[in-house]
Amino acid sequence: MDEFSLIRQYFDVRPLPGHVARGIGDDAAILDCPADCQLLVSTDTLVSGVHFFPDADPASLGHKALAVNLSDIAAMGGRPAWFTLALTLPEPDESWLKAFSASLHKLAESSGVSLVGGDTTSGPLSITITMIGTAARQKAICRDNAAVGDAILVTGALGDAAMALRCRSNDIALDDANTAFLNKRLDCPMPRLEEGALLARYASAMIDVSDGLSSDLGHIIAASQVGAELYAEKLPVSETMQQAARRAGIDDAEVLSMVLNGGDDYELCATVPQAQLPGLLSAWSTALAPVIPIGTITAQEGLSLHGDDGTVQSLNSGGGYKHFNE
Amino acid sequence: MDEFSLIRQYFDVRPLPGHVARGIGDDAAILDCPADCQLLVSTDTLVSGVHFFPDADPASLGHKALAVNLSDIAAMGGRPAWFTLALTLPEPDESWLKAFSASLHKLAESSGVSLVGGDTTSGPLSITITMIGTAARQKAICRDNAAVGDAILVTGALGDAAMALRCRSNDIALDDANTAFLNKRLDCPMPRLEEGALLARYASAMIDVSDGLSSDLGHIIAASQVGAELYAEKLPVSETMQQAARRAGIDDAEVLSMVLNGGDDYELCATVPQAQLPGLLSAWSTALAPVIPIGTITAQEGLSLHGDDGTVQSLNSGGGYKHFNE
Repeated sequence: MDEFSLIRQYFDVRPLPGHVARGIGDDAAILDCPADCQLLVSTDTLVSGVHFFPDADPASLGHKALAVNLSDIAAMGGRPAWFTLALTLPEPDESWLKAFSASLHKLAESSGVSLVGGDTTSGPLSITITMIGTAARQKAICRDNAAVGDAILVTGALGDAAMALRCRSNDIALDDANTAFLNKRLDCPMPRLEEGALLARYASAMIDVSDGLSSDLGHIIAASQVGAELYAEKLPVSETMQQAARRAGIDDAEVLSMVLNGGDDYELCATVPQAQLPGLLSAWSTALAPVIPIGTITAQEGLSLHGDDGTVQSLNSGGGYKHFNE
Repeated sequence: MDEFSLIRQYFDVRPLPGHVARGIGDDAAILDCPADCQLLVSTDTLVSGVHFFPDADPASLGHKALAVNLSDIAAMGGRPAWFTLALTLPEPDESWLKAFSASLHKLAESSGVSLVGGDTTSGPLSITITMIGTAARQKAICRDNAAVGDAILVTGALGDAAMALRCRSNDIALDDANTAFLNKRLDCPMPRLEEGALLARYASAMIDVSDGLSSDLGHIIAASQVGAELYAEKLPVSETMQQAARRAGIDDAEVLSMVLNGGDDYELCATVPQAQLPGLLSAWSTALAPVIPIGTITAQEGLSLHGDDGTVQSLNSGGGYKHFNE
């Protein structure tokens, strides 16, 4: 199998109807951009041995490589439309390719995006996806517009992925349902596309939580030149994570650290003007991941954590994962 | 230096005026697509140890990684506009980054494209660029529309990059000017953007010659369900390549093989209806790389090479480079 037959067999799927004039198979794809839209473009790379273990399940990788890019478009309040896949593989392992491509195509279809091109090369395993989406003109939500007094909200729950990693590396045994829940949160995060589209109608700023809440909220407050206070008791922690922490004897301070700095959550963090908050919360549907106010944007710069007991702790907004950090 | 400071220092340059509402620094870039255009999207990866030697000059890599993607947009007759860079590096080597980013930005500026996003991760050295361009609606040139009787043209000269590699690996010494010429052809190919834009006004099909003429013309004839005959004496070979061949004792048959199958040429191969040929040739400017008719599209499928002496040789249209080929 050479690269051309590999592409034909595993990646040359029919694009979804609309907006793709020509997909895979030419020097470039030809795409029809809807009128009155702006384009959104984002790129994420997953490298073997850095972002995942070399023996990671290829089905999870296919899902996750796409999900992390969809999450970036969700964080702008956009609608994802097209993506390219640059896949570098040590060898053309057909069972790996079959599992990887099947889960990639499954998430692509359910998310309404079409694979329109890419490059397949030999080399150390690495996956780079570039996602292109659209947003109504001037309606995409950036990081730099949070204002003093805005509520800070987050979708879903935080720290599950960090706990899943901890359970794996420390052999912490949970029952099957809880294990499956945590593994799914780490390996198959669901991009919050509908949540992002709804949040975008109300939010002043938004980001996806990929490096850890403290880092990612840190980007919002740095870009907006404001500060933030978080309420410790409001931070959403799943029942499964709490059980796992009890089982493993992980104390509250460490759970809190995983929630704030764990990374790989792929939830959305948005700031919403107080006047918009009731409208957002009443428009929210139970079919979506929950959205919870967890803090407030402040004039005082920096990030602080407020306990119910009146304690205030200053947080390092750079606590999340960074490549090349020494 | 962590990934964020690395990006700020080497990659967060001001986008060119127009069409970039928001560049690097948010979850996704926001781009303004010109009205009445279609988007063109292409991705190419360069992997250390596969596409280049691990100690390759970073300035050449910065140029080439961008050039190969610009070449794909040129081959559609499009205008490149934006690109993302996914850069995987073993370590944040500042002198490497300085040289790499400087030559990348230099070619970007001269080609009118803006870096709008990307991802910087640690791992084995690899460079993936996704290029987005535009073409007037329905005016992009694909591979599948070559018709029987069309002239086959190619820009520039073929085989220089293959000869450059041969000189390096076999220690073939040429004078400085010829060495510099061949090295530039291999390391710093100039994407044929203006040539592609002009060819697109006349061509029925077009492709860039990256894997070797036989392979790339092979894609055109396969997609168009036609054949092609090439005239051996018309194939453009540079004076430097001829000198190098004489110096190294490389015979004509092997020079021909390098011209047909060498790869890394980044010239354009186009098919042009005979009725359009005089118009194209008279519109061609001496400021552009030369364009030369080298053959004709035939009803008889397959690729054949015709010598001045009346000999006809059947060519393998899959002679060029393929990843995973065994």
